[in-house]
Formats: sequence, structure tokens, C-alpha cells
Amino acid sequence: MAKLVLIRHGQSEWNALNLFNGWVDTKLSDKGIQQAKDAGELLAQEGIEFDQAYTSVLTRAITTLHLALEEAGQLYVPETKSWRLNERHYGALQGQNKAEAAEKWGDDQVHIWRRSYDVLPPMLDSYDPEVTVQGKTYPAFDRRYADVPYGDLPLGENLKITLERVLPFWYSNIAKDLKAGKNVVIGAHGNSLRALVKHLEQISDDEILGVEIANGQPIVYDLDDDLSIVSKKVLTK
Amino acid sequence: MAKLVLIRHGQSEWNALNLFNGWVDTKLSDKGIQQAKDAGELLAQEGIEFDQAYTSVLTRAITTLHLALEEAGQLYVPETKSWRLNERHYGALQGQNKAEAAEKWGDDQVHIWRRSYDVLPPMLDSYDPEVTVQGKTYPAFDRRYADVPYGDLPLGENLKITLERVLPFWYSNIAKDLKAGKNVVIGAHGNSLRALVKHLEQISDDEILGVEIANGQPIVYDLDDDLSIVSKKVLTK
Repeated sequence: MAKLVLIRHGQSEWNALNLFNGWVDTKLSDKGIQQAKDAGELLAQEGIEFDQAYTSVLTRAITTLHLALEEAGQLYVPETKSWRLNERHYGALQGQNKAEAAEKWGDDQVHIWRRSYDVLPPMLDSYDPEVTVQGKTYPAFDRRYADVPYGDLPLGENLKITLERVLPFWYSNIAKDLKAGKNVVIGAHGNSLRALVKHLEQISDDEILGVEIANGQPIVYDLDDDLSIVSKKVLTK
Repeated sequence: MAKLVLIRHGQSEWNALNLFNGWVDTKLSDKGIQQAKDAGELLAQEGIEFDQAYTSVLTRAITTLHLALEEAGQLYVPETKSWRLNERHYGALQGQNKAEAAEKWGDDQVHIWRRSYDVLPPMLDSYDPEVTVQGKTYPAFDRRYADVPYGDLPLGENLKITLERVLPFWYSNIAKDLKAGKNVVIGAHGNSLRALVKHLEQISDDEILGVEIANGQPIVYDLDDDLSIVSKKVLTK
């Protein structure tokens, strides 16, 4: 028996501005900082003691995890970061305003990009080092991805591809810890967590898109030794 | 060639109250939070790109590292925590007011405990789970030390013993990274860093006690392949 807790980051500065965020490295807004602390308070009330923490290489998820663990008095828990827990890469939509994108491409098209399982968004053109999103270098040339094989880095992703790159890390690290009885907390993103929820709960391709994961509301699973779900609850203030 | 940066945590709540802190897990004061952010700003100005971060299992050091890395735009750097980077364990002095301790035991005695290389402080009595310091459980019964062999946990330390338990981690992790050319940042404590400085700079037992490491002022070493010091500077605002 082990506990798995998923925490979606608090509101980011770009969430607040209604911009497609994806892999662009934005910070938490003041509201997001409070949501992260609230998540930690909920974990403390729940009395869960963690053995291992995981997060992405994006600041908004890392900061959320740190604020929550500090609030829960468990900042000392070992932490491993992986790009495989990053948000879905939104391709050429990154940095675009969601309302402006709807005007440009139409509501229906933007809705399909946001909510279909396997339709790709408009992709970035290439790994050209000149490609930047709102002044930030394209991920292939960001040093945090220096150890990632060149072809593994996406130019854009749908939820299906997101799931496919999350799963290797799930099996290599997270699932192993859980099977060893460790309590694990993951601080990550709407779509990397949606991918994990789909896998864990065996949700269909159609139904997963209706699953919303709220900022800063920890999802707590009790898992048996086969990682089947014994119970699930969402912590809210 | 690699860079090694040492950062002593910002002022803690107990530093502000003039209490012996040691292994008791206290938080940064508001001043300490600002010192940590300032350290990150200095690192950003210096333009150092880190490959690996290390810290202790005590909140004030971990938080300082996180605030500094976030300010420097490098929160994504891989991080490893170890109890071997903890502050010197101050034994039965932990939680005592420094002025009151001087009244109780005399100025000279307290000065010896604080500033001698190999005189031990008054030790905690035992690993008795009833032993608490200001209401906090004694480290042997704190779950963050659950994986540490029982006899390795101190009941009190001088600087010599602190150095002796820091060095195994230096060799097993930090020195290996530096020899591989990785730039390393360590967020730790006055005495665990003093121990590292003694080792690196080959400072004598007598002279090390005059070496002060200021809160939140990064010490930057350029090291050659044998980890000999090519240059050293301290960053200040």
C-alpha cells in the first residue's frame, strides 16, 4: 500500500493573462503562490508523510511543490525533476492569447486543439535556434534540456504524445517507488497530470478530455501493490 | 575547470532570537528570505550556469538554495539533499539562548564550545525518544533521518566531527561532479561550509575558527581538474 498525491501548480502569470503557456517557463502569480501554500496546509491536515517528490523542470511546478512541502513541514523530502513531467508542449500556440487565437483560427478549431486527444496544435517550425516564444529561446536550445536526446524534444504535442513521454518516467521511477511502498508526491501540470490520471484510472480517450484538474487541489490516491486504486479523494479548502 | 559556489543560508528565526540552532529545523526570517534572494541576484549577475545543486535536510538551507536559484532563473537544476551537509549539531546547547548560556556556564566556556576545533559541546543524554529540544523531537526519531544508520547520528559535534561527516559526501558526490566539469552550488550552514572551506583551502585547525562565512554571500571558487583553487571571490551587494 502506498499513497500517490498529484498537485497541479498554482495559477501562473500567463494563466492569469490567458496565454497558452506550455513549455514556456513562467512564474506563479500571487494567487498561485497562495494556492500552493493552501495545498501544503491540506496535506498537513491529511497527515501524509512523503518519501519521494517528483516535479517537472518548469518553475511554476517546482515552486508549487516547494511551497506545499514547506507548508507541510516536509521540505526535506528527496526530489527528482524530469522534463517528462512538463506541461503539454503547445507548439506555435505558446505565448498566444487564447481569445486572440480563437479570433484568428475560429472557436471550433481552438477548441479542437485544446480538447481533442490526438489532434496536434500548429507545430513550431524547426529546431532553428532563432525560434523564440515571446523572447524566450526554444526548448531545444535551453540548457535545462541539454541531456535530452535531440529528437525526443517536441515541436508541439497533443495529450496522446504527452502521455507517451510521461509513461517512461512513470515506469522507471514513480511506479517503482510506489511498489516499494513509498509515498510519492508529484508537482506538475494540467496535462502531464491528466495523462497520469488517464493511465491510472484507465479512462478512455474521449472521456479524459472532460477531466479537469484544479490548480493547487491535491489528488490523493491509495494504491495497492499492483498500483490499482483502492481509494481516491481530492483535497479542497 | 569547474565552479563551486557555497551559500550559507539567510538569517533564520532562531539566529534572530540568538538561540543555538544546530539541527533544530527552523525557518528563514524575513531578513533571511531577502538575503537568499540577494544571493540569487548576485549569481545571476555573475552569469554562472549550474549543473548540480546540493543542500542539507534542514529547511533554512533548502529554502535559501531554492530562493537563490529561482532568482537566478535556474530552479530547474537537479538537487540532492544530505544530512551530511547539516549544520554542526550543538548537542544540549540547541535551543538555548546564547547570552543565557554564557551566564550559566561562563563566557569563556561558551566561547570554547563555539570556537574550539575539537572540544565537544555538552552532549544530548541519549537517543531516548523523550528527548526534545524546544518541543521538537530529537533527530534520531525524526523521519528525515530514517535511512541513516543509528550510530551515525550525533548527540553533539565539534567542527572536527562535522568535517569528518561532511567529507564522505564530498568525495562520493560533490568532488565527482566537479571533476566531471560540472558547476556545483551548495546551500548549507556556517559550520558545514566552514568544514568544506577548511578542506578545500587546507586551513589549519587553529586558523579555521577565525574564518567567518556570511549569510547569503556566495563564495565562488574556480577549481582545476585536481580541485586545486585557481581563484576565489565572495559576492556581496
